Amino acid sequence: MEAAIDIRYALDTFYFLICAALVMWMAAGFTMLEAGLVRARNTVEILTKNVALFAIACLMYLIFGYTLMYPEAGVNSVWPGIGFLPGADHTVEAVMASEGETYYSGAADFMFQMVFVATAMSIVSGAVAERMKMWSFLAFAVVMTGFIYPLQGYWSWGEGFLDGLGYSDYAGSGIVHLAGAAAALAGVLLLGPRRGRFGPDGKINAIPGANLPLATLGMFVLWMGWFGFNGGSELKVSDIESANNVARVFVNTNLAASGGLVGALIIARLIFGKADLTMALNGALAGLVSITADPLSPGHGLAAVIGLIGGVLVVLSIIGLDRLKIDDPVGAISVHGVCGIFGVLAVLASNDEATLLAQLTGIGVIFGFVFVSSIAVWLALKSTMGLRVDEEAEYEGLDMAECGMEAYPEFVSSRSG
Amino acid sequence: MEAAIDIRYALDTFYFLICAALVMWMAAGFTMLEAGLVRARNTVEILTKNVALFAIACLMYLIFGYTLMYPEAGVNSVWPGIGFLPGADHTVEAVMASEGETYYSGAADFMFQMVFVATAMSIVSGAVAERMKMWSFLAFAVVMTGFIYPLQGYWSWGEGFLDGLGYSDYAGSGIVHLAGAAAALAGVLLLGPRRGRFGPDGKINAIPGANLPLATLGMFVLWMGWFGFNGGSELKVSDIESANNVARVFVNTNLAASGGLVGALIIARLIFGKADLTMALNGALAGLVSITADPLSPGHGLAAVIGLIGGVLVVLSIIGLDRLKIDDPVGAISVHGVCGIFGVLAVLASNDEATLLAQLTGIGVIFGFVFVSSIAVWLALKSTMGLRVDEEAEYEGLDMAECGMEAYPEFVSSRSG
Amino acid sequence: MEAAIDIRYALDTFYFLICAALVMWMAAGFTMLEAGLVRARNTVEILTKNVALFAIACLMYLIFGYTLMYPEAGVNSVWPGIGFLPGADHTVEAVMASEGETYYSGAADFMFQMVFVATAMSIVSGAVAERMKMWSFLAFAVVMTGFIYPLQGYWSWGEGFLDGLGYSDYAGSGIVHLAGAAAALAGVLLLGPRRGRFGPDGKINAIPGANLPLATLGMFVLWMGWFGFNGGSELKVSDIESANNVARVFVNTNLAASGGLVGALIIARLIFGKADLTMALNGALAGLVSITADPLSPGHGLAAVIGLIGGVLVVLSIIGLDRLKIDDPVGAISVHGVCGIFGVLAVLASNDEATLLAQLTGIGVIFGFVFVSSIAVWLALKSTMGLRVDEEAEYEGLDMAECGMEAYPEFVSSRSG
Repeated sequence: MEAAIDIRYALDTFYFLICAALVMWMAAGFTMLEAGLVRARNTVEILTKNVALFAIACLMYLIFGYTLMYPEAGVNSVWPGIGFLPGADHTVEAVMASEGETYYSGAADFMFQMVFVATAMSIVSGAVAERMKMWSFLAFAVVMTGFIYPLQGYWSWGEGFLDGLGYSDYAGSGIVHLAGAAAALAGVLLLGPRRGRFGPDGKINAIPGANLPLATLGMFVLWMGWFGFNGGSELKVSDIESANNVARVFVNTNLAASGGLVGALIIARLIFGKADLTMALNGALAGLVSITADPLSPGHGLAAVIGLIGGVLVVLSIIGLDRLKIDDPVGAISVHGVCGIFGVLAVLASNDEATLLAQLTGIGVIFGFVFVSSIAVWLALKSTMGLRVDEEAEYEGLDMAECGMEAYPEFVSSRSG
Repeated sequence: MEAAIDIRYALDTFYFLICAALVMWMAAGFTMLEAGLVRARNTVEILTKNVALFAIACLMYLIFGYTLMYPEAGVNSVWPGIGFLPGADHTVEAVMASEGETYYSGAADFMFQMVFVATAMSIVSGAVAERMKMWSFLAFAVVMTGFIYPLQGYWSWGEGFLDGLGYSDYAGSGIVHLAGAAAALAGVLLLGPRRGRFGPDGKINAIPGANLPLATLGMFVLWMGWFGFNGGSELKVSDIESANNVARVFVNTNLAASGGLVGALIIARLIFGKADLTMALNGALAGLVSITADPLSPGHGLAAVIGLIGGVLVVLSIIGLDRLKIDDPVGAISVHGVCGIFGVLAVLASNDEATLLAQLTGIGVIFGFVFVSSIAVWLALKSTMGLRVDEEAEYEGLDMAECGMEAYPEFVSSRSG
Repeated sequence: MEAAIDIRYALDTFYFLICAALVMWMAAGFTMLEAGLVRARNTVEILTKNVALFAIACLMYLIFGYTLMYPEAGVNSVWPGIGFLPGADHTVEAVMASEGETYYSGAADFMFQMVFVATAMSIVSGAVAERMKMWSFLAFAVVMTGFIYPLQGYWSWGEGFLDGLGYSDYAGSGIVHLAGAAAALAGVLLLGPRRGRFGPDGKINAIPGANLPLATLGMFVLWMGWFGFNGGSELKVSDIESANNVARVFVNTNLAASGGLVGALIIARLIFGKADLTMALNGALAGLVSITADPLSPGHGLAAVIGLIGGVLVVLSIIGLDRLKIDDPVGAISVHGVCGIFGVLAVLASNDEATLLAQLTGIGVIFGFVFVSSIAVWLALKSTMGLRVDEEAEYEGLDMAECGMEAYPEFVSSRSG
């Protein structure tokens, strides 16, 4: 019996760590995706933003975020109280005394949660690409990862009031993806579109990405990392039932991505008459976001269908945002916001314990809180550091203006766009 | 005892899922390898093909393929009968009642098999690159992943007649790699070579790939993913003997790749007088394919030698196919076909239970069936959708013709070739 | 009890193999990092060097290295004696008889150690880039991975005299990273700087890398792989205490990288007035190298601080080496050498059992031995094969001279530098 507790704890901890490493890997995925979808002249800046936001997210979550999101005892269901640094890990004695209730390392839990924050923040960087000041973005990252994300995370995963209401969100279609998209939308609205994106005559000008193999690689990295993102969110693998659950989550995650890709490819073919690679990539991600709120309850076929609907939705949403003159260079708001909302609602298709009211409340609370608090932070940054680079920097590219170097210095550029 | 069954089931399931994630990752490897080895103007098309074929493979295998390959009870040893969708996962009670005979999740098994199909299909896409119509290729993918691959898979891994004859193919040098190569060869023969590849005077014109770092990345991704491909094919890790076996498979896989790389590098140096990177990359993959039919029986030194022979073979085969005017832009037929056959035969070097007759029968049956049925499907597609793009599209590149976008729109191209 | 030994052995073996796969993946990271930081015309050569050195390292370690580093019984604490090939794996009986003392597969141990050698060798390739003859480099790789690295590895990890003195180096800030950097420095000093790097008037000319997204990808791959590098070095995960340790190592590794990135970003901003992406990338790697000698003892906050100091150090070191006219195209000597030394000393900050004398001795012995023996080998190569390419090859690029192909043949180059 003692040996079983011991080994299970080890297995669950190891499983958690490997899943965390896969989620960390998603940071590379976002970076490659975004670097492939912007123009060459803004590539160094987006690379720098992405590597820096990951580091900032980890450090801020260490210092403030984790104890805010998972306090030992929250003050109340809305406000967790302020703490610092994660506590000491479980002792052997405490684990044994818990008789299997404590079944993985606290440090492994911190690791897993830490890389989740970075994911939420990575969503923002693509949407505000090619026109935002880099240091303002990083300042926003400090607040988002240290405070905004953890506070709303407390409400559901930290056993706050959304959890009490029955809001159901397995791996975070709402808590991670919609939250990131809400912060992104706030930034995008305050920034305005890139110059030349929308013509004076209402014309919508596509600005193609400079390096599509890179974007494709990013999509594959995200797909792979998502096995850790969703698969790790079961939190346990060490018995038959948990192992079956994790396996089901892996399969459904894979099928939802597949469905999303095919859905987007077909709908884009119908609308544009071509096989649109960037839509296909976003379709796969849309399928992944859509299944994230519940990759466990649906059967495999339903998972594929949920993904497929997500893939169709994301294409329509990208077209719709264009018409609204909301400029999101990589489609992050559509992928993570629109499909995040869809994912939270799709829980109702297979999980009997979820209620429409709780899901809608979750969506409203997460979107409302993150959007409003982000607007406040972005406005504070606008009045101090400024949000948008000047016209010349935008024309010349952020790389020389902000980073003093080019991404591809030897390749002759046609400087289109 | 109950706890031991419980924990072993969890560990084997987790091991299976991680290996499956690594095999899924191989899809990214094939994509990067192929995208690096074609010309810039055909890059979006090959990216789109690769992401789409992975999604199609997963969905088709869900709907038809898995039950075809692993029926609950096959009709006979040649025809499994038609079924739909994988069955429910093992219950805790069933696992316990089996006393350890059922030792991993059915969903994990489905996951692992599903990503194998995609591998087989990925092999085809490179060989027919730069001249085939994309939608015809995807239509072929539907048939290949839903029916052709699973049916021949049934004959060996599904306990059909090849298994009964004693055909031995641990992780699929024949069942996966030769099968993929046979389908590719069928397509290549019907398509004919790319324009300008073979001069009227018998001159062979090399068409260099546009992005060799990408191709190199693809090779590394495949190498890494192969640890899951071969390592997972032991199917079990949860006791000392199985763990030793899996460890041996990892080591032999790594050494065969190393041997293949060195073998190809040296033979190419002797023949061409230069260090040929693309041959080295194909050499590593050749080593991997060669060891795949039996990464368990050989000692470490023999594994390296098998890989090395594979690396030499692949260079000679690539040169030979060029002389036969068979145009395979990425060398897939040589890597997966020629070395797949060699791998199946190399089993005889260390596995006493394998017989030459059974191995030759396996090679003949797999190659014959997949080649003939692929020819039939390709011909059906030729007479309906058409197989080859028109001359202008081939000259301008498939990217604009099929996908309406460029992979590297800002970089000025010299348009060589 | 028997079942527990059995399952623990399986779990520890599986953990070891997954960590090894992650370390193997670091080879891709080094390759992408280096390929992104050199000029386009030297890219195929550095790709070829990197894939070939990995293969050579694995084969040489198989034949000589492993038995040299881990002899069954060393002749004395300085000289292990010569052996060949790893021994047979542990039998079930031997494991059971050991009552848990033997807790993972010998083949898994070999796998893990084999990919470590390749890491040490990868460090060298970047530093000597853009001017060294490729075949001379590969000849050096044979000696380094078969003899120099394993011999000094024997002194500490093989229970030789450095281990006896109490030298403490958890995952090899000294044994792997400083060793690689010492060999690199020896090569760089004998080679001299690239033409045009240092002007006649003392001017230092930056030579920007051709593909920064690739370099960024390389950094992420290394970061991810480092979870295996450090996380696997605990050697055991199968009980509560070991699992807690591995989890702590993962967290500290992640935080040190984060600290290093932020430290380098800030110090580079203060010095250069810009957000310097390449410094940020090297900062993350510096943080990783700095924590590698002890990712277990420090608290999470201290780990972040150690990484941050490493990040600052690496920027200062890169500037300092430039002033000394030591030309290291990718900063490898600063990242792995300077931060390797810092890492070995940083052990003293949290590990009470480490002594300054032992750590300094370890640094001196490792650096001294590897540097001197590398000088000897490089000189022998210089007098036979030659070390440096001729002036024309350096101007035209090593790709055409050594490999006969271009990395990006279709992209028009501005041929700067």
